[in-house]
Amino acid sequence: MSRIAFIGLGNMGAPMALNLLKAGHTLGVFDLVKPAVEKAAQAGAKAAATAQACVAGAEIVISMLPASIHVETLYLGESGLLRAIEGGALVIDCSTIAPQSAKAVAQAAAARGLAMLDAPVSGGTAGAAAGTLTFIVGGDAPALERARPVLAAMGKNIFHAGGHGAGQTAKICNNMMLGIQMAGLAEALALGTANGLDAKVLSEIMSKSSGRNWALEVYNPYPGVMENVPAARGYSGGFGVDLMLKDLGLAAESAMATRSSIPLGELARNLYALHSAGGAGSLDFSSILRLLKRTV
Amino acid sequence: MSRIAFIGLGNMGAPMALNLLKAGHTLGVFDLVKPAVEKAAQAGAKAAATAQACVAGAEIVISMLPASIHVETLYLGESGLLRAIEGGALVIDCSTIAPQSAKAVAQAAAARGLAMLDAPVSGGTAGAAAGTLTFIVGGDAPALERARPVLAAMGKNIFHAGGHGAGQTAKICNNMMLGIQMAGLAEALALGTANGLDAKVLSEIMSKSSGRNWALEVYNPYPGVMENVPAARGYSGGFGVDLMLKDLGLAAESAMATRSSIPLGELARNLYALHSAGGAGSLDFSSILRLLKRTV
Amino acid sequence: MSRIAFIGLGNMGAPMALNLLKAGHTLGVFDLVKPAVEKAAQAGAKAAATAQACVAGAEIVISMLPASIHVETLYLGESGLLRAIEGGALVIDCSTIAPQSAKAVAQAAAARGLAMLDAPVSGGTAGAAAGTLTFIVGGDAPALERARPVLAAMGKNIFHAGGHGAGQTAKICNNMMLGIQMAGLAEALALGTANGLDAKVLSEIMSKSSGRNWALEVYNPYPGVMENVPAARGYSGGFGVDLMLKDLGLAAESAMATRSSIPLGELARNLYALHSAGGAGSLDFSSILRLLKRTV
Amino acid sequence: MSRIAFIGLGNMGAPMALNLLKAGHTLGVFDLVKPAVEKAAQAGAKAAATAQACVAGAEIVISMLPASIHVETLYLGESGLLRAIEGGALVIDCSTIAPQSAKAVAQAAAARGLAMLDAPVSGGTAGAAAGTLTFIVGGDAPALERARPVLAAMGKNIFHAGGHGAGQTAKICNNMMLGIQMAGLAEALALGTANGLDAKVLSEIMSKSSGRNWALEVYNPYPGVMENVPAARGYSGGFGVDLMLKDLGLAAESAMATRSSIPLGELARNLYALHSAGGAGSLDFSSILRLLKRTV
Repeated sequence: MSRIAFIGLGNMGAPMALNLLKAGHTLGVFDLVKPAVEKAAQAGAKAAATAQACVAGAEIVISMLPASIHVETLYLGESGLLRAIEGGALVIDCSTIAPQSAKAVAQAAAARGLAMLDAPVSGGTAGAAAGTLTFIVGGDAPALERARPVLAAMGKNIFHAGGHGAGQTAKICNNMMLGIQMAGLAEALALGTANGLDAKVLSEIMSKSSGRNWALEVYNPYPGVMENVPAARGYSGGFGVDLMLKDLGLAAESAMATRSSIPLGELARNLYALHSAGGAGSLDFSSILRLLKRTV
Repeated sequence: MSRIAFIGLGNMGAPMALNLLKAGHTLGVFDLVKPAVEKAAQAGAKAAATAQACVAGAEIVISMLPASIHVETLYLGESGLLRAIEGGALVIDCSTIAPQSAKAVAQAAAARGLAMLDAPVSGGTAGAAAGTLTFIVGGDAPALERARPVLAAMGKNIFHAGGHGAGQTAKICNNMMLGIQMAGLAEALALGTANGLDAKVLSEIMSKSSGRNWALEVYNPYPGVMENVPAARGYSGGFGVDLMLKDLGLAAESAMATRSSIPLGELARNLYALHSAGGAGSLDFSSILRLLKRTV
Repeated sequence: MSRIAFIGLGNMGAPMALNLLKAGHTLGVFDLVKPAVEKAAQAGAKAAATAQACVAGAEIVISMLPASIHVETLYLGESGLLRAIEGGALVIDCSTIAPQSAKAVAQAAAARGLAMLDAPVSGGTAGAAAGTLTFIVGGDAPALERARPVLAAMGKNIFHAGGHGAGQTAKICNNMMLGIQMAGLAEALALGTANGLDAKVLSEIMSKSSGRNWALEVYNPYPGVMENVPAARGYSGGFGVDLMLKDLGLAAESAMATRSSIPLGELARNLYALHSAGGAGSLDFSSILRLLKRTV
Repeated sequence: MSRIAFIGLGNMGAPMALNLLKAGHTLGVFDLVKPAVEKAAQAGAKAAATAQACVAGAEIVISMLPASIHVETLYLGESGLLRAIEGGALVIDCSTIAPQSAKAVAQAAAARGLAMLDAPVSGGTAGAAAGTLTFIVGGDAPALERARPVLAAMGKNIFHAGGHGAGQTAKICNNMMLGIQMAGLAEALALGTANGLDAKVLSEIMSKSSGRNWALEVYNPYPGVMENVPAARGYSGGFGVDLMLKDLGLAAESAMATRSSIPLGELARNLYALHSAGGAGSLDFSSILRLLKRTV
């Protein structure tokens, strides 16, 4: 068992921290939102008043924050956490951020003699609670081996994507694919039903044909086709439109940095942006069907 | 066993006809290309000099033609085949054409007392030769039951999509989804590798994540990731760019007819059109990676 | 002065016919909608009970119909008008239709010894009433010279685009450009104002810079920038979203027929389709700003 | 006449500096590239060994650098130039950079008591040499009045877009519009000629119709339509594809920061990216016609 500092107790971070406690680790926690800290403390974590206090004595530091700017602000600079973390500790950032940011922080960590991994997750809040997240990890293999028992307490699958930042890049590529195929599926189902097909019949045919994909198999966006998916409950829960928008934005930034062409990826980004602009930002991203299906 | 007339002995039609012969059916054949007819005759079919002669006495008429215009010209009008086919026969058109055309021909057939099915296929020339095609069928259930033993001699899966034209619509929707996800996958792999990822590692991660789809599982467009796919042999064989272009064109027509929105579908159409315009029309459609991957 | 038969007295055709009467031509009229015929008769036109009766004795036949199907049905086939029009007459179709249809009808006319022009217009209902339409003409130069005095009674500018169908093609290209630049301008104004710019200031700068275009100069889509444009009156009047959708559909068909790539044109088509699907089909097309401007 | 420090003597900066000398200003210059400094010195400028030395005693500081990162690095931080510029001086940044960067630097300047303007230009190297640039300025009106005589020595038009960063935003919006309408025009001309129209005839018709825009009037992308444009000389000279790509990238960043939707803008970005990826990065941006015009 390890002494772990966990920073960032939001919708994802809080249940991840609980699973570390359940696995028997000693856990210090910090968040700017006090009630989140108190809740974790009630579950057995040690509340810290500052991030600096939180990492004192920790063998492993884990962070789960909203965006690049938060991760950079936390770790870098004069008062950055990298100066407070103890030598030899392992730092694991589970936030989904720009690969360039992940590389910059890992480089700064290395300069301080600290091993670091970028380990963004997929699986959503449900996976976080159930301990079934997927970790897509960037960094050195030895660091990943050290991290493995800890990650295993929070997730089921662990992929090693490559060096620093590769975890972020792989997650961005996967989620861009997801954003494209969900919107593409919504188009296909809207087109088929506008031409008189039954959405369930069409979904069954496509799920056994060359059009099959993850969304068809477990996350159909058309109401009435599947139970227990966001489409069955008015698109509540699930993975929000604005989160997909964020991930497609990271893909666009990544494409611009490498002068790559992602025409479908950026068009998908704009479709989710249009949908969000219409007020659907907090609905599940499969609600993109509503934008694409003619209702007039 | 049935007396079948088979019209259209191209890359797809010829091997389909052979499988009907193997299954023991009595087969008359016709094509405008004489050598194709002779080849089928050598295999045991009865060569006909005209389409009219071919259908004389047939219980089942099957056609496999390039496009809507050919199907309409064959069946409709003063000298159309519907006037020559014997009462009570079943007509099965396996061409991939516009749903509106399929409906128009089926309607004209019904007016002559003939049952008709639209039954476009997927599976390519390999599937046609092996007898493992998928049929996506539109039309009445009783007609499909009559057709089933004959279709089973040429294919493995038979889906009933709905009424007349529904087979075409379902195939169009499926192939639009396929065209989108192949191009989207090419973008994702190009973006990932431009950022330093290994295409094989990234493909493995995505194929076990929410980005997974048919192309990732069996038809990876990135050379070196899979064996026995077009990408492994310079994109030869497979399903041509210009065929994908045709199917996405049918999707666009279908969207215009119903004022549906298929932004990703039409953008994909244009990407394949750009690719074809650059000279890649006869390569496999997974070669869209070449358009999307920066090489300079 | 000529004996003219005018077929199609809709929003555009009716005021065009009136201008021919004002210019002193002898005018026979026909439309399936009786009140439209009566109204023209009250203004001095000779009402005809059928299209056939209308063209009897006419030196010039003009048609103004909604779409390709109507023009083909009117002129072609067993009971088509081309069989009723007197030898030596000139046929002018002012409808906006597919170039292929225009060519097919012109070819059939030529086979009957009739000269034909495709002469689609721009300028809207206001231009039709004021007699200031622009005609974009396809066909032979001698036929155009015969038509010129008649067209001049209805419009101000007459362009000769080329042979049969060229008038349609040129109009389609122009309107595709218009549809793209209006939507592009809406994006630019939405982006600028979202970043704090004043729409009027930004419009002035762009209208004097390399971003300038027709929409910036006379048809600004942002409410408050210009008076006397649809944006100043809740997007009523003007050129409807569904008409732009139709013209972009003709562009897409034309692109598919020639395997051309029009990625921006087809994306614009889908943006207007999304906008129409949201209920804006009868608003002026500059209302695309509403789709593109974030309001949440 | 003023004492001016000019930093950044590239393709744009060098001729701009020369025009300041011609107008009689006292000019100190600095660039990391020594030959550029020597050339300006030969024309009468005072060569400085460092940026810090260059700004000593200057009443006005002008910078012309490639991108946000260079501007931020020059002015901000411990050793940034804002600490070296004399109190009361006016700082004018003519670089095209992100509005957020422009705002951040202006804010830091204000904290040091320095007035600052963002004043990106349009008009290209030809306009820079001829002293006919257009300045699109963001910042306070009094600062703009102080800058006006100096800007007038380098350009012809001066627009005041709004507060800090507004110059950048307005330029970005204008150039996005330009990028869209050039690519849209290329599509329209490619579509028209593929359907048999003459590019010159079509261009004339559109330039007098609702499709008219800056590109049609002075910068036609189709070879043979206009003289003295890049299309007439193999797309050499002019405004490079990679520069348009940079500006569309700034538009995309700006859209992401404000969650705006710019579907056409981002698709245009990807078309130029595809074109650049094919090796056309240094050709004039009107060469996008080559990507869009089918040649096979």
